[in-house]
Amino acid sequence: MNDAKPLALHPDRLFPSDPTQRMIARRLYLQVAGLPIVSPHGHTDPAWFAQDEAFANATELLLVPDHYVFRMLYSQGVPLDALGIPRADGSRAAVDPRAAWRTFADRFHLFRGTPSSMWLNHVFHDVFGLRVRLDAGTADEYYDTITAALQTPQFRPRALFERFGIEVIATTESPLDPLDHHAVIRASGWKGKVITAYRPDPVVDPEHEQFPDALRRFGEITGEDVHSWEGYLRAHRQRRAFFASMGATSSDHGHPTCATADLSPAEARVLFAKVVSGRSTPDEAELFRAQVLTEMAAMSLDDGLVMQIHPGCYRNHNRGLFERYGRDKGADIPLRTEYVHALKPLLDRFGNEPRFTLILFTLDESTYSRELGPLAGHYPCLFLGPAWWFHDAPEGMWRFREQTLATAGFYNTIGFNDDTRAFLSIPARHDVARRIDCAVLAKLVAEHRIDEDEATDVAIDLAYHLPKRAYRL
Amino acid sequence: MNDAKPLALHPDRLFPSDPTQRMIARRLYLQVAGLPIVSPHGHTDPAWFAQDEAFANATELLLVPDHYVFRMLYSQGVPLDALGIPRADGSRAAVDPRAAWRTFADRFHLFRGTPSSMWLNHVFHDVFGLRVRLDAGTADEYYDTITAALQTPQFRPRALFERFGIEVIATTESPLDPLDHHAVIRASGWKGKVITAYRPDPVVDPEHEQFPDALRRFGEITGEDVHSWEGYLRAHRQRRAFFASMGATSSDHGHPTCATADLSPAEARVLFAKVVSGRSTPDEAELFRAQVLTEMAAMSLDDGLVMQIHPGCYRNHNRGLFERYGRDKGADIPLRTEYVHALKPLLDRFGNEPRFTLILFTLDESTYSRELGPLAGHYPCLFLGPAWWFHDAPEGMWRFREQTLATAGFYNTIGFNDDTRAFLSIPARHDVARRIDCAVLAKLVAEHRIDEDEATDVAIDLAYHLPKRAYRL
Amino acid sequence: MNDAKPLALHPDRLFPSDPTQRMIARRLYLQVAGLPIVSPHGHTDPAWFAQDEAFANATELLLVPDHYVFRMLYSQGVPLDALGIPRADGSRAAVDPRAAWRTFADRFHLFRGTPSSMWLNHVFHDVFGLRVRLDAGTADEYYDTITAALQTPQFRPRALFERFGIEVIATTESPLDPLDHHAVIRASGWKGKVITAYRPDPVVDPEHEQFPDALRRFGEITGEDVHSWEGYLRAHRQRRAFFASMGATSSDHGHPTCATADLSPAEARVLFAKVVSGRSTPDEAELFRAQVLTEMAAMSLDDGLVMQIHPGCYRNHNRGLFERYGRDKGADIPLRTEYVHALKPLLDRFGNEPRFTLILFTLDESTYSRELGPLAGHYPCLFLGPAWWFHDAPEGMWRFREQTLATAGFYNTIGFNDDTRAFLSIPARHDVARRIDCAVLAKLVAEHRIDEDEATDVAIDLAYHLPKRAYRL
Repeated sequence: MNDAKPLALHPDRLFPSDPTQRMIARRLYLQVAGLPIVSPHGHTDPAWFAQDEAFANATELLLVPDHYVFRMLYSQGVPLDALGIPRADGSRAAVDPRAAWRTFADRFHLFRGTPSSMWLNHVFHDVFGLRVRLDAGTADEYYDTITAALQTPQFRPRALFERFGIEVIATTESPLDPLDHHAVIRASGWKGKVITAYRPDPVVDPEHEQFPDALRRFGEITGEDVHSWEGYLRAHRQRRAFFASMGATSSDHGHPTCATADLSPAEARVLFAKVVSGRSTPDEAELFRAQVLTEMAAMSLDDGLVMQIHPGCYRNHNRGLFERYGRDKGADIPLRTEYVHALKPLLDRFGNEPRFTLILFTLDESTYSRELGPLAGHYPCLFLGPAWWFHDAPEGMWRFREQTLATAGFYNTIGFNDDTRAFLSIPARHDVARRIDCAVLAKLVAEHRIDEDEATDVAIDLAYHLPKRAYRL
Repeated sequence: MNDAKPLALHPDRLFPSDPTQRMIARRLYLQVAGLPIVSPHGHTDPAWFAQDEAFANATELLLVPDHYVFRMLYSQGVPLDALGIPRADGSRAAVDPRAAWRTFADRFHLFRGTPSSMWLNHVFHDVFGLRVRLDAGTADEYYDTITAALQTPQFRPRALFERFGIEVIATTESPLDPLDHHAVIRASGWKGKVITAYRPDPVVDPEHEQFPDALRRFGEITGEDVHSWEGYLRAHRQRRAFFASMGATSSDHGHPTCATADLSPAEARVLFAKVVSGRSTPDEAELFRAQVLTEMAAMSLDDGLVMQIHPGCYRNHNRGLFERYGRDKGADIPLRTEYVHALKPLLDRFGNEPRFTLILFTLDESTYSRELGPLAGHYPCLFLGPAWWFHDAPEGMWRFREQTLATAGFYNTIGFNDDTRAFLSIPARHDVARRIDCAVLAKLVAEHRIDEDEATDVAIDLAYHLPKRAYRL
Repeated sequence: MNDAKPLALHPDRLFPSDPTQRMIARRLYLQVAGLPIVSPHGHTDPAWFAQDEAFANATELLLVPDHYVFRMLYSQGVPLDALGIPRADGSRAAVDPRAAWRTFADRFHLFRGTPSSMWLNHVFHDVFGLRVRLDAGTADEYYDTITAALQTPQFRPRALFERFGIEVIATTESPLDPLDHHAVIRASGWKGKVITAYRPDPVVDPEHEQFPDALRRFGEITGEDVHSWEGYLRAHRQRRAFFASMGATSSDHGHPTCATADLSPAEARVLFAKVVSGRSTPDEAELFRAQVLTEMAAMSLDDGLVMQIHPGCYRNHNRGLFERYGRDKGADIPLRTEYVHALKPLLDRFGNEPRFTLILFTLDESTYSRELGPLAGHYPCLFLGPAWWFHDAPEGMWRFREQTLATAGFYNTIGFNDDTRAFLSIPARHDVARRIDCAVLAKLVAEHRIDEDEATDVAIDLAYHLPKRAYRL
């Protein structure tokens, strides 16, 4: 195409344009750009690393699994079927992946200024060596280049893992998962470190449509009577131990709110019986999830798993889309979230325990300065996870730092989580986080609030030491 | 006056002072500065354009109708009577308009840094050619210059409309309005495009003190039995069709919350009977307004009117002022506003309808990144209106962009609304919006997140194409 | 130590690094840097100025009383006993103050980027003349230098007061305080102006564990029957008059919410009887506090005391810590706070009273643009206190200005409160506030929104005239 625009990754991207700040940011970034990637929380598929098979094509790799991307296209009138997104019943529209790619390329301007365009351009440029911008005119060139590359050995999952400089990556599995892929990876002799994390939501949320089935399978897998409260807790302890044996150093909990509870065993038993009966009210379901969080904290004291809470999302908000396409189709919407009252029962029991670590996330940025910073700046067990999901753009990362720094400092935060299933974008995402942290620090140095040697220490800590320490890696 | 300070409009105003960003912002602005004004939502008086009579004087034109201005003066102890603000009973204090103007001029420093000072200085400088700053010493010079100019043909409403480069402007009328002024404009042969918008609040809000009267007149005007649910809906359809025939392309709904409902016809009938009886509770009034929003969406699918919701204001908060001076006296205060649960009933019905457009506004900025961006970045029908009312200052416009860009991008927003009855300030307001959008884009370019040709496209889209597309103009 | 890093206070600290803005900020700051300190709200101990005794040592002066500092150390695993923080029973761990200081110095990096490090470095540099950075290697040098200096006459409280250029400082006392220290100061002939402020929370909050005792003592001190509603109100009037006679120009109210009420005398009497009986419910306690706020406003109209409300904190959130160490141990956490409905009862009565001043504070920054700016930009009695407590960092001060400027302007705000018991940090805190206001104004000038002469006026008003006017000093 004569009209193709050049694609470049500017070495100063994301740094402030003020020359003083930019020079400082450059120097700080030089110290962290090459550090290994520590990815303690994410959603890559362990099968990739177990089987090490080639990815199919550009569309299957970059478009179909990325709800950041197809969400935006859907918002501008592109039907999910036009992209070949799988439906709830497992079927898919008969769409040529190249045609789906063209639909995406035609509309790549919709992503201007969004983090998706930044990550994707990074992948296009650095992983696939593309040097023209994606648009209608270059769609086929892109599709062919990417799809061809994927067939080569250098683009197999393990080769990319090594090329990306990943020191350790955590996946996320349900207690029902046998962790076979992790076992295969460990047995393979491959040196890549892929660990799991314990995410028990399917057996914790009574409002999930598959909860009864999940509970039954939880009993089968563990051999415990999981329909009794004590057996249910024993089953969790058993699976947590198994997950830890497969490398897990953390549990993760995705709840609608951050509510915790501290019921007596007798109360918990009665509540659990109600939940198991399938007749719990929404309030009882909420109380049950709240109680389980406190039980998980108790278990963390024993087995040392770091605990993470990701609250505050209305899942599958679009009813029609959910009925047709199922979960995780870009229709999750954040909710106002409260932490101060919600966490009190758990903190009353474990807030001062030196062995306990609880990492908090939020989708409600109004809590950064009001609740989360002050909580993490006081309780020894509490740390703040990075700007999450809808807030992982450069602007969101700046807000996170500017709104938590005064009260939590840098050292009650834990560095970056990429939190992604978009494997190829992992270097891009860590690079963005490192650049923004360097930019934030450069501003502090330029305004004479910290010295540059201090900023260098902090930049390295945020990129490498803090995530390792927080997740006990 | 020897002491008079010069008044200038700097060509780089509102652009970042960083030289890199400023140069880019200048180039972007050059591409949009001269584009026609598209004003799809506002509150100018159609009588001005129908009758084309001269405005009376500086005070009547610039001070008395502008609640942004007299609100600030009132907050600093100036009685409304000292400004000649009309009272609820229609009377006015016997105040010399020149004296009121002096009171204002004496206190113009109170507006330092506010958008009002920016808009007013733009009007003073560009519309009236003033070159000294407004203060106590120049009050009379201002009053005389402005009042004299207003008597000349070039300052008649139609002449100003043309001078301002307005391509189309929408006013806002109640269903009870016969739209006579619009009819006069259309019949006059004047080429200015002035359209109406359908704002049915007076016949939708059972808590408005004049609701029973309004409902009765609604019946008289339409000939429908508006005290039956079906007749009431038919009356809306009829008036919407009439409004559309007078150019309307949108409806607008100013509600205390964004609640929507999806009652069965039987439930709606029972609720409506209660509302008509005058004995509805606050909860029932709220449910009724919620149900009407969903009915309006249903009608939009048929007649193509774009729907707007402006929720979240406590109207007439100052009881004493309301009793003495009535509505709209600068005592409206924003409220915390929820969208995710509130919109679900409406979105469950119409959220995936390709023919439907719903533009959302907010006075609660905490919803930008948490709720509105993610909603608009998913639902095909949803678009975000610009930073509104209390948030239309440069800082508010920056926050809007920085907090919605990651999730909604630029293309799920609709460009600018001036939303004003201050006719003379319309060019100033659009100029501010264009400058801020150019500044936002310049920062993205300077930090190498988008290329300048992309930024140019976006700037032009925001200033011109997006409002035309969103409002179907 | 060879490794000691230099400690410097850069003359341009906190100014934007953009050269245009920095030059303007410098010029503005030159106009305000030397203005006297007006400190209308704070928590210094009047005994210091009455007795004028030497402070004990570095740890007792700078570490033990500063919950900003030991909170952060506690959050990173330092037990309060290791710092010698007093326990609830009055005992203290037998910790060498030098050892506590070393514990702090070892971890001074935790404060990077926080306001505490900025204030402390200012104190170290300007008050004690230290020129190396605090860290493990310089801990002893710091401890010795500071402790030795404190034994000299120039470091006695009155000498520091004069050195700091304090024109007036307000302390905060309970109605039960006999104000003996203030009497001693007044009788001493010393020219330093130290006034009190009326903070009746202990006799207003039925949920405080010492409320019954406090109420009894309130009766003893005033000779009123404070267990009757009328006697209780008379007791307040009497103590307010006494406080005013000792210089008080304001009352202050720290409540969990901003709720106000306007009960009839008969209702209030019934409620008070319930409260006095010790059997009030949480809702009744809340209603009582709400009613007292309105009564305080009524008294302000008579005695002219300016009223302040500081709402929205969950006090003593950490149960274990509270039981062991008591109140005010850095475990107070902000809460979501509502103002629009909450203030209506009070404003309905007094909102338009020209003689009444009510200064509002918040720990919920989401209310700045949504509620507080619009309220203060309308009601003549309302003014906004500065960014408070968790939000008094440079970033918090910027947010305060950027989110209230559009609606409240500069002139519905009241300049700075240091709000501190850390006496030595008072110049540092005012300096930070002045620098940030100059930086905010410099940006407005650099972006051609106000002229530099206007910015100079505003800077001086914010630093000096507005606090004096607002607090009637």
